[in-house]
This record gives sequence, structure tokens and C-alpha cells, in this order.
Amino acid sequence: MNRVRNFCAGPCTLPVEVLTEVQNELLDYEGSGMSLIEMSHRSPEYDAVHGAALDRLRVTLEVPDDFEVLFLQGGALLQFAMVPMNLVAPGSSAGHVRSGAWGKAAYADAERACSAYLAWDGTDGRFSRMPEPDEIEVRPGTRYVHLTSNETIEGIQLRSLPDLGVPLVVDISSDFLTRSVDWQRIDLVYGGVQKNLGPAGLAVVVIRRTALEECVAGLPSYLGYAGHSAARSLLNTPPMFSIYVVGKMLRWIQDRGGLAGMAERAIRRSGLVYDVIDSSDGFYTGPAQAPARSRTNVVFRLSSPELDGRFLAGAHEAGLMNLKGHRSVGGFRASIYNAMPDEGVEELTEYMRDFARSAG
Amino acid sequence: MNRVRNFCAGPCTLPVEVLTEVQNELLDYEGSGMSLIEMSHRSPEYDAVHGAALDRLRVTLEVPDDFEVLFLQGGALLQFAMVPMNLVAPGSSAGHVRSGAWGKAAYADAERACSAYLAWDGTDGRFSRMPEPDEIEVRPGTRYVHLTSNETIEGIQLRSLPDLGVPLVVDISSDFLTRSVDWQRIDLVYGGVQKNLGPAGLAVVVIRRTALEECVAGLPSYLGYAGHSAARSLLNTPPMFSIYVVGKMLRWIQDRGGLAGMAERAIRRSGLVYDVIDSSDGFYTGPAQAPARSRTNVVFRLSSPELDGRFLAGAHEAGLMNLKGHRSVGGFRASIYNAMPDEGVEELTEYMRDFARSAG
Repeated sequence: MNRVRNFCAGPCTLPVEVLTEVQNELLDYEGSGMSLIEMSHRSPEYDAVHGAALDRLRVTLEVPDDFEVLFLQGGALLQFAMVPMNLVAPGSSAGHVRSGAWGKAAYADAERACSAYLAWDGTDGRFSRMPEPDEIEVRPGTRYVHLTSNETIEGIQLRSLPDLGVPLVVDISSDFLTRSVDWQRIDLVYGGVQKNLGPAGLAVVVIRRTALEECVAGLPSYLGYAGHSAARSLLNTPPMFSIYVVGKMLRWIQDRGGLAGMAERAIRRSGLVYDVIDSSDGFYTGPAQAPARSRTNVVFRLSSPELDGRFLAGAHEAGLMNLKGHRSVGGFRASIYNAMPDEGVEELTEYMRDFARSAG
Repeated sequence: MNRVRNFCAGPCTLPVEVLTEVQNELLDYEGSGMSLIEMSHRSPEYDAVHGAALDRLRVTLEVPDDFEVLFLQGGALLQFAMVPMNLVAPGSSAGHVRSGAWGKAAYADAERACSAYLAWDGTDGRFSRMPEPDEIEVRPGTRYVHLTSNETIEGIQLRSLPDLGVPLVVDISSDFLTRSVDWQRIDLVYGGVQKNLGPAGLAVVVIRRTALEECVAGLPSYLGYAGHSAARSLLNTPPMFSIYVVGKMLRWIQDRGGLAGMAERAIRRSGLVYDVIDSSDGFYTGPAQAPARSRTNVVFRLSSPELDGRFLAGAHEAGLMNLKGHRSVGGFRASIYNAMPDEGVEELTEYMRDFARSAG
């Protein structure tokens, strides 16, 4: 077996230990005589897996008791609709910070689902930074301000959550479980799991209980948070395989220092790559302004774009995969999520230094 | 390894051949150096898996060229909302046949999403039969009539799709790919895959292109069919693992005679169990009226319910699992989906005969 280093922006690399456990259990889960993916979602065996994953997520993300954790389908994209449908009653509105491609998409969907306005727009600055708190406009009647914690494509990240005097809703998909959440300012956070936590097909929503109680009533079953909460995220057949792997991944994270351990890894490892960029005498450049640099998605360019093909081919040969930047931004992107081994980052920085030396 | 016979109503048993392939590929998919669940959904490797699954579904279900196949998340439950949100414009309405627990749930959600009315109600008959075509009321302005092809809980099935003079929308979750679909009467069919086709987390929608073109515009991205269709069901990260296993399951079905093969299996195998019931001199009874008996979910009772516990314990000992009926109906239910081996059904009928002999 020849495992490569996968710097894909999502879905994510997973630890070999987790994959091996899944492999070993695939035909017979804990002596049940069947695979977990064949089980009833109402079986005691699956219920234990489901409950453990919910509990571990709560513990690992340090979710306070006055919040509910929900496991849903449809990715963060369905949350772009469900959040306003549930939280914004007629007469109130949602303020949106357009900080990058994902903030832009969230705002576009909010406009289709409720009364929404642009609280800050980073378009003119080519999404190279996050707003200062006093740049964010909060209009009267605002139910919440929506933020994107980390913009995966542009590689920028909010350093801290602003105090805007209204509750915050935050899309944490791409820095999920790489930093702590300032819960006191939050009504809801959501994220797809496929970057830092497990296989695609599962989104996590964490919602303040008081917000849950005030949700818009009368929505079709799948679209209302209240029903999912009352049913412990078993309103219908859940994405059992994703939940099962996420449970294992959360245990893997707990064994490595939990949230604090992951935060330390994210700072240290992204720092290694930014150091290479900053000490390259301009051979590598990063479009993100330094204070907003993402700790999960390091976006960079070559000062000589004619070398792009050679850089990518050499990386491929060295087993460093999926470093190509998003087509809307160009250049390169190293997504360094929780499950990336330290060795992967070391190999990347070594390759970047060698390439600059030989080509520079 | 000691595999049991799993008669669960969903999620479903899967063929050992399919599970073994998944197991072998879990850490390194086709020499890529990574698992399929770690791959970018934009990678050529995943794209081939995705396209092959879409194509195989089209071929196996004999979907005509003027229909689109979509892979979505949220199960059939999200379709209870998406179907009316997309198809029922203001001024038109949806007629619903309430033929059992699932038809009832679909109607309740339709009422939350659009103007809907009850076209037929089987509640008084305790959901023991399906309606005759002339019992179904079709009001002026009806966009479609919604049917549930097979009621999983009550064990009743529509033998054929009625000609009502308006398009039909059919929930085919629980007899998916066990019978052919009469496409000429259909605007849309949908179903979760977790009963006959693969792991939970994926729903399939097949929609007539003309209906797709007339869908209500301006819905949030995830909730509109048009966007999913334009993006080849890659509008956001899809439930890749489910799609991958469904692709393998479809090949498995094709190798066993395709739709015709599965239809023959469903008729023959459910027939074996109904034969035991009918020849038991009343020891076993089935609540479903004979012409409406389901070929995927055989619901039956003991005439002496005090023997229920012994029946279930003996079945368990014989490796025949998940035969308990739904709590709303009681008794027993043998769900015999595509991947159940013939031997499982033979062991069940043998057990039922032996039990009746020894206890009767």
C-alpha cells in the first residue's frame, strides 16, 4: 500500500488508523453478523454509535449545555436555506458578511429564503482579508449576522468572532474542530464534516436551545430544526456510515489532545508553510493579507506562473496530491486538515524549498 | 465470520460480494493511494464512479431519455418537501393518496409546502389495500397525484399505476428496482436507496425533463431540482460513499438479470412466505388483502400472540434477524429486498413451518 499526501480542500484525508478500523469491521460489526451499513438505524448497535458520535462531538467542540447538536444531510449548502427558513420570521432580517466564495453563496441563498442584506462586502478587496468589527453594518430588526469562519477558496480566516450586539450564525465547515468557538456570541454554527471530520454526506448544526424554541413553525419535516432535535437526529434514516466514521475520527482527535491539540497543530503546521512562503524572497506569494491567513487552507502562487506545471508535476511525483488552487483563484492551495500527518506537511515544505532553490 | 439473515425493513442487507469489494478498496482505491472517501468529488477517479452510478441506474431502472436522474441527500423525507416546492406553482395543487404510514407522512408535509388535498384515504380500512383507480378523486387544477408504490409498514403494494389523466409522482423507496416503472404516466419518482440499493444517505429522484423545465424558480440552491440537474448532482459534495456502493450494487443487479431478474426474485420469494401463511390453517395471518400484498415487505401475525416472544427468540437463534413488525402494526415483518440471498428466504420459510408444526 502506497498512501499519498492528500492536500485536497475537501473531502479530506483520514487517518490510516481510522480507515483500518472501518475496514476490519466492514463485514461484521462487533460480532453482529452484519455490516454497520446494513443495520437498522433503530437497532441498539447503531443507536450506541449514533449517541457516542453526538456526545463526542459535544465534548470535543466544547459545546455548552444550552446548545443542541444535530446531525443532518444536504451539506452546508442545505443549511444556507434551513438557517434563514428556521430563524428569520417575517419582519426580521439576516445580515450577511460576504467574505469570499462561500460567504457569497450563503448570501445568495439567504436572499432566496428570507429578507437579507449585505452587512459587509469584501468583493472589492478580492477577498484578501476579513472585516474589522466596526466595518460590519447591523441594521435594526436583524435576527443574526452570518459569518464564514474560514473561506476555503481564498484562504482567509476570521481570527475572532466580533461582538455586534446581535447573535451570530457561523459557517465553520472548513475550520471545524481546528479552533475553539466563542459560544456566548453564537446562536448557531454549522459545517459539513468532509473537510476535518469524516466522509461526505453529513452536516453538523449546533444551535442554542432558546433559538431552537423560537424557530419558525410549520415547515416541512426535514426542513425544521425542532423535529430533528426532538428525534435526536433520527427523524429519518441518518447518513449512518458518515456518522460512524465521524465518531471514530472524534475519538482519534480526543486521543491527540482534543480541540487544543488540533488548534496547536493548525497553527504550527500552517505556520511551517507560511514560513516557506515568507522566506522565499518573493518566489512564493500569498494573496491573503497576513493577519487573515487561514490555518487550514494555505493559498499561494509562484511569482513565475510559467513554472506552475512543473511545480505540480514534481509535487505529484513526490506523492503530494491535490495542490492545485481553486479555478476561480488559480495558483496553489495546501489544505491542511486535522487528519493530515505532520510528515505530510514536512514533505510539502521540503518540496517547496527544493523547488524554489532549483528553479529560483 | 458468521453472517446472519437480516430481514430489516431498512437499511438493507447487502451482498457479501459487494461488501468485500468495498473492504478491499477501503485504504487504496484503484491504486490512487487514498480511499474513495478521502477523494475530491471533482477528481477524475470519483467522477468516473459518479457517472457510472448515474448511468447504471438509468439503464437498470429503464429510465427513458426524456427523464433526468438526480442523486440527492436528505432521504425520501426531504423529497416530501422538495417535490411540492418544485412542482406546485401558486394556483395549482397536489392530490395525495393516503395509503399507509408513508403516504400519510408525505401528505402531511405536502400540506406544509403547497396547496394539497386528500385524493383517497385508506385510514378507515386500516391500510389493508390500495385504491382502485376510480376511487381516486382528481380535482381541477391538480398538478399531480402522489402515490406510495409500496407501504413498507403495512405491507401493501400498488399492482399498477392508475391512469388518472394527470401526471403521477410516486415514492418508490421500498420497492425500488424490484419492478418496472410505467414511465408514461410519471412526472417524477423518488426513493431512498437504503432498502434495495445501498447504504443510507442517498435519495434518487427521476424527473421528466419537461417537468424539470417548469419547476418553480428562485428556490434556495439545494432545494431546486434544476440546479442539481445542471450540475450532474455535483452541486455540492455528494454522499460519495453511498453513491460508490450503489454503483457496485447496480452492477450486482445487472449481473443477476437486471430489473427483470429482481422482479422475478421479488414475486417468487415473497410468494414462498405467503404460501407458508396461506397453508398454515390460520396459524399465520396477514393483514394485507391478498391482491395488495407487498412483494418486498411480508407482514404477518400469529393467531396466538402469546407465542410472539417464542417465535422471535427462535428466529434469532436460527440467525433470522429483525423480523419484528413495526410498533404501529405489531406482529412480524419479513423485508425481502434485492440483496437477500435465496437461502435466507428458504431458512425463514422452513423456520416458520417448523414453528407452526411444533407450536400449532
